[in-house]
Amino acid sequence: MGSIAPEDDSLRVAIIGGGIVGLVLAAGLARRQVNVRLFEQAQGFREVGAGIAFNATAIRSMELIDPGVIGALRLAGAVPLSAADEDDPNDYLRWIDGYNQRDPDNPYSQKFYYKACAGYRGFEGVRRDQFLEELVKLFPPGVIQCGKRLENIEQRGSDDKMLLSFRDGTTFEADAVIGCDGIKSSTREFVIGKDSPAGEPSYTHINSYRTLIPMDKAIGVLGEYKARIFHNHIGPRANLLHYPVAESTMVNVTAFVHDPDDWPAGKPTTLMGSRDDVRAAFRDWNPAVRDLVDLFPDQLHMWAVFDLWEYPLPFYNRGRVCLAGDAAHATSPHHGAGAGMGIEDALCLSVLMGEVLASTRRDRAARGAALTTAFDVYDKVRRTRSQWLVNSSRRMCDLHHQDDWANPAKWLKAETCFEEVKDRSHKIWYYDIAGMVMDTIETFGKAADGRVQDAVLAKDVSAKDVSAMDVSVKDVLAKDESINSLAINSLVAAVSEIRVDS
Amino acid sequence: MGSIAPEDDSLRVAIIGGGIVGLVLAAGLARRQVNVRLFEQAQGFREVGAGIAFNATAIRSMELIDPGVIGALRLAGAVPLSAADEDDPNDYLRWIDGYNQRDPDNPYSQKFYYKACAGYRGFEGVRRDQFLEELVKLFPPGVIQCGKRLENIEQRGSDDKMLLSFRDGTTFEADAVIGCDGIKSSTREFVIGKDSPAGEPSYTHINSYRTLIPMDKAIGVLGEYKARIFHNHIGPRANLLHYPVAESTMVNVTAFVHDPDDWPAGKPTTLMGSRDDVRAAFRDWNPAVRDLVDLFPDQLHMWAVFDLWEYPLPFYNRGRVCLAGDAAHATSPHHGAGAGMGIEDALCLSVLMGEVLASTRRDRAARGAALTTAFDVYDKVRRTRSQWLVNSSRRMCDLHHQDDWANPAKWLKAETCFEEVKDRSHKIWYYDIAGMVMDTIETFGKAADGRVQDAVLAKDVSAKDVSAMDVSVKDVLAKDESINSLAINSLVAAVSEIRVDS
Repeated sequence: MGSIAPEDDSLRVAIIGGGIVGLVLAAGLARRQVNVRLFEQAQGFREVGAGIAFNATAIRSMELIDPGVIGALRLAGAVPLSAADEDDPNDYLRWIDGYNQRDPDNPYSQKFYYKACAGYRGFEGVRRDQFLEELVKLFPPGVIQCGKRLENIEQRGSDDKMLLSFRDGTTFEADAVIGCDGIKSSTREFVIGKDSPAGEPSYTHINSYRTLIPMDKAIGVLGEYKARIFHNHIGPRANLLHYPVAESTMVNVTAFVHDPDDWPAGKPTTLMGSRDDVRAAFRDWNPAVRDLVDLFPDQLHMWAVFDLWEYPLPFYNRGRVCLAGDAAHATSPHHGAGAGMGIEDALCLSVLMGEVLASTRRDRAARGAALTTAFDVYDKVRRTRSQWLVNSSRRMCDLHHQDDWANPAKWLKAETCFEEVKDRSHKIWYYDIAGMVMDTIETFGKAADGRVQDAVLAKDVSAKDVSAMDVSVKDVLAKDESINSLAINSLVAAVSEIRVDS
Repeated sequence: MGSIAPEDDSLRVAIIGGGIVGLVLAAGLARRQVNVRLFEQAQGFREVGAGIAFNATAIRSMELIDPGVIGALRLAGAVPLSAADEDDPNDYLRWIDGYNQRDPDNPYSQKFYYKACAGYRGFEGVRRDQFLEELVKLFPPGVIQCGKRLENIEQRGSDDKMLLSFRDGTTFEADAVIGCDGIKSSTREFVIGKDSPAGEPSYTHINSYRTLIPMDKAIGVLGEYKARIFHNHIGPRANLLHYPVAESTMVNVTAFVHDPDDWPAGKPTTLMGSRDDVRAAFRDWNPAVRDLVDLFPDQLHMWAVFDLWEYPLPFYNRGRVCLAGDAAHATSPHHGAGAGMGIEDALCLSVLMGEVLASTRRDRAARGAALTTAFDVYDKVRRTRSQWLVNSSRRMCDLHHQDDWANPAKWLKAETCFEEVKDRSHKIWYYDIAGMVMDTIETFGKAADGRVQDAVLAKDVSAKDVSAMDVSVKDVLAKDESINSLAINSLVAAVSEIRVDS
């Protein structure tokens, strides 16, 4: 690596972490003429074979980030989760009773509880490893650097660049740094400080087991209908869900099991578990669930689920460093929306880096301030929603795992949860992502002009200021409407350009 | 009383219970030419002097029920809760830190947490006793009968009427009966059966203390701004809220205090409590809250808060008897929306009784079946939302009473709750009440035609069928569009008529 030739005046952005969010963000920045470099600490992109699902907002965000990302998703074999009904092309999540055997004549019968409509191609499932593999192919050689473990970030005095140091002794200079390095983020301490209690991961008291099962075997135990579409089997203190991936040749199955104990400090959070552990957890469940567990491999990975619920971040940025995805707001997976929330972040950041480039084209010296402003806007636009997700996912788990599912006197009560399940799901799936892009552009435009910078973006580093996030961007904009039509035109142009390209 | 002369072929509806919901429903039915009679077990309408607030959906429902109800509300001295800002006529609920003294130099300072906008005149506060008094004035003599404690409801064989018997030995014949008789409803057993576990009230482990304080005294301790507008002072295991009533001459104050113990069976749920009890509960709180408590009277009522959360009803109707308001879905008061939800019920029932009259004008013999269908539609339209409120109010209390408010390491986490607080509040305040009226009319029209009756309204009395409630009325209508334009025209006509009248 080494330093950059002085004549290189491209906008250089370093991304730390080569997970899905980092790669998707890199694609979005590259597409907007940013000189992007991605640093991954591992030696390569090896993933445990397991599925991941993307909701409609995440998919729409990918389209706006870079249609190439959608291409990668589809090349990786993504399929709609649950559009099994020929009369209805929409995707649904379906919740069914995984626990009880209510019908003595047919112990395999499972009560249908609820379905929530995610819209047309409103949820797509894919193998995580295959998606990563296709994403990596989007980049020319040199953009992605593996084996780079971040050690330090410092601001160089003279030319205002950020200097990254890696454990292998190399360095890299960038105009800005975005940490997409997950719940155990190394970048985070450069944003919130080494001694901040924020960002300490919390054990959610949930362990998850994931595996892929060939579709024909899944059909053998679940039947064609259940096997081919998303079902979430719920019951007391556990749930098990599955959906098709890999062009529907495989079913991705995840079991979530409550653990009343604490997780010992220092114990690895990913371990090898066994099918017998899963069998024990679902011992009293409906035989349909037990039969599916019997198809699990003898040994499989177990993840202890951690999140940032207890110690959220007071802000996602400092100067020209910011955090996205799990590094900023690691969530438990009960909405199936963790990566999708990071992809929304990536869209916001892609738009902002494009705005930074456009607004400083004739004044390169202003770039540093513009980047700082851009990350302030990012924090403003993204923090409330993404921290809500962390809370909501915990709540979804509580609703899924109610003890009441096992108590006939409480069945009616338990089922009244689904109106809330729907509201929470819809808040994610039907988010106005174009509205977010508009807010981002407008807020950046006004802040960059310095007109409302003090009012909107004042940040109280002592973390007293979470309440400021309830001043919505629209509230601020309502006070100064002169910029709106200009910004809206800019948005329309930006979105049109992207869509024409696709 | 006694029986009705055979030539009287008006639609006779008996309402059981003369609380706010019963009286508002009576106004709505009377306005639609229903021959309504309201039976109240007490000897008169005496209310403890305390405030009640109505959100925008409730107020809009009142307008659609009968503009006279709005007249009664305003005559009773209703005022916007919190439109204190001259630059902004909207009402807001405001949450502030009631517990901590964060500023050593000014222990009275209270951190502002959040405000949620309820819209223009989006919340109005009134004295409950004054509102009831004005509502009663809407009716000619004879409509409201006090001292009538319901003992029995039975269907008479010959003429298909419902026969009500009261403890005073009198009887009354009606075509239909609507129980608005509160959480301890006597009507309920005629709907869900004597032996059903549903409808058993649960103790929410919250005790509430209410009082009215003269505005000048409240200003003395809170200052002009806080005293004149709605504030909810929150903290660990308790909260205290206040808002103006009685043309802003009084402040209604309510304190909610967590009680870890169970409530002994048979113990009265309304008791005399003392100011010292309240003082003890708020002993460690911000001095602004303690000073306000000092203004409470020595002795004041304490209500143990019960709801129907644990044992919700499987349905709200049977034949020509149905339940509305607390009798159907008694909720804790943490959304300030319990009575409002009953007023939404009253709108739905008013519209339906109007439809019954209109659709059976040329076929009086069909009235019995039409009433049964109307109550089936009522159950379909109202149950999911109103049971959601019961759950949501419990959740709001949990969010208000977090222990984390007292733990500086958890302040950031605690404050991330407000996105959820906003979502839950908006679901109530910004409900599409005209859409509910449309659903009601359309579903009744189709069901009365018998075209979808079996599919939509089949009811599983064994209470297995709560999941059916997720089949939305719109889903059903989407399958048969021929009726839509007709029904929409009917709605438009109905709403226009009401609005012109007002």
